[in-house]
Amino acid sequence: MTMKNLSEWMNQPTVIIPSYLLSNYKDIGLMEQEVMLLLQVHNFNLNGKAFPTPAEISSVMNLTEMDCTMLLRKLVQSGFLEITEDEKPGFETYSIKPLNEKLAYHFLKEAKQADFQEKVQKSE
Amino acid sequence: MTMKNLSEWMNQPTVIIPSYLLSNYKDIGLMEQEVMLLLQVHNFNLNGKAFPTPAEISSVMNLTEMDCTMLLRKLVQSGFLEITEDEKPGFETYSIKPLNEKLAYHFLKEAKQADFQEKVQKSE
Amino acid sequence: MTMKNLSEWMNQPTVIIPSYLLSNYKDIGLMEQEVMLLLQVHNFNLNGKAFPTPAEISSVMNLTEMDCTMLLRKLVQSGFLEITEDEKPGFETYSIKPLNEKLAYHFLKEAKQADFQEKVQKSE
Amino acid sequence: MTMKNLSEWMNQPTVIIPSYLLSNYKDIGLMEQEVMLLLQVHNFNLNGKAFPTPAEISSVMNLTEMDCTMLLRKLVQSGFLEITEDEKPGFETYSIKPLNEKLAYHFLKEAKQADFQEKVQKSE
Repeated sequence: MTMKNLSEWMNQPTVIIPSYLLSNYKDIGLMEQEVMLLLQVHNFNLNGKAFPTPAEISSVMNLTEMDCTMLLRKLVQSGFLEITEDEKPGFETYSIKPLNEKLAYHFLKEAKQADFQEKVQKSE
Repeated sequence: MTMKNLSEWMNQPTVIIPSYLLSNYKDIGLMEQEVMLLLQVHNFNLNGKAFPTPAEISSVMNLTEMDCTMLLRKLVQSGFLEITEDEKPGFETYSIKPLNEKLAYHFLKEAKQADFQEKVQKSE
Repeated sequence: MTMKNLSEWMNQPTVIIPSYLLSNYKDIGLMEQEVMLLLQVHNFNLNGKAFPTPAEISSVMNLTEMDCTMLLRKLVQSGFLEITEDEKPGFETYSIKPLNEKLAYHFLKEAKQADFQEKVQKSE
Repeated sequence: MTMKNLSEWMNQPTVIIPSYLLSNYKDIGLMEQEVMLLLQVHNFNLNGKAFPTPAEISSVMNLTEMDCTMLLRKLVQSGFLEITEDEKPGFETYSIKPLNEKLAYHFLKEAKQADFQEKVQKSE
């Protein structure tokens, strides 16, 4: 039985967070609850639920269903979360691709500034 | 330069979260901010900082230094976070091992209940 | 364009290997090429191909199509890889769940031996 | 005891492989055994051994100590593996950063070609 449990554990999906997201979500304008909600949506995706309802999300968060509805809407409006239409009409999917785009943009902006400062220091 | 950026990105550490943590932190008594703080502490560890100060943690969270101090203390007291003495005296390390123990305990308790219910249903 | 590239990179799936697989695949009877083939099958799965053909696998490995066919068969026969029927008849899926079961079994066997030796030492 | 095992399992490090490495190691000139050896070196690093000996690597691979010595040398010479001097003299560390650089270079070269072909098609 123990072995069954452990292999069940091993067969579960895993959520991967780039270290950079943790160090920079504040800078790109996210609150802790919002990051967690994005991770929850991603986790539902990994577990086969492409479009979890606010009630489903609320069941795993310390937020009411109403809070979840409002926070989801806010994240879509502020460009961290995307709703895409599936091939089958009526089927929708959440995607956190926009979050990754914002992170990429922030990373490259920081990298350019670092390069620029390096050049300035060398030219002095 | 682009290549430098991408390989810098690839050389960054990554934080791994079991799907099970996201689905069950609420059940084991954690709030969203507390999970994020545990992930931040773990992330500092991965980046070579074994014992980040409240000020360092506050710099990457939407929490004041004081909030961080209190939340760290609460997480230690409630058995989610551990402070261990390093071999070198005066050096301390945060560890989220207790969080993993609580998760493991919860997972196995749930597995036992599922097994029990299965047996009951079969014997009926 | 650079940003597009980096966010494309970030949107790619990631394969996760427990440290324990790397330290113990030899002990459970796997060769390096076999581990790589299992990882490739898993990677095709993550990218939406549930049942990659030997030709597809061969295109990303230093093995001929014939080698891949034989190695896949060997891994199924020796209980590291599983072929499951999809709901839709005619659709099949590879799964590396049996590998995880073997790893779990090996891990627990080792843990029991360690516990036993500890008890023996204490009783002496 | 079971819980102890599972939390021991959870406390183990995890090796992360970008999907892109699996699909492209052949194109950048690596054999399966070489990828596995690079992963092993990385895994030793994660477990606190910055400079594993050929004997240590051989103990977890289906390769003799001599094979490991030669393969390590080859990977350093062909620019996939790097040996860096630690601050403390006499202490050395293996790093797979050069592998990531080669992957980044390959990824961006492919992305440029894709962009170019897109432009050509649009202008026709």
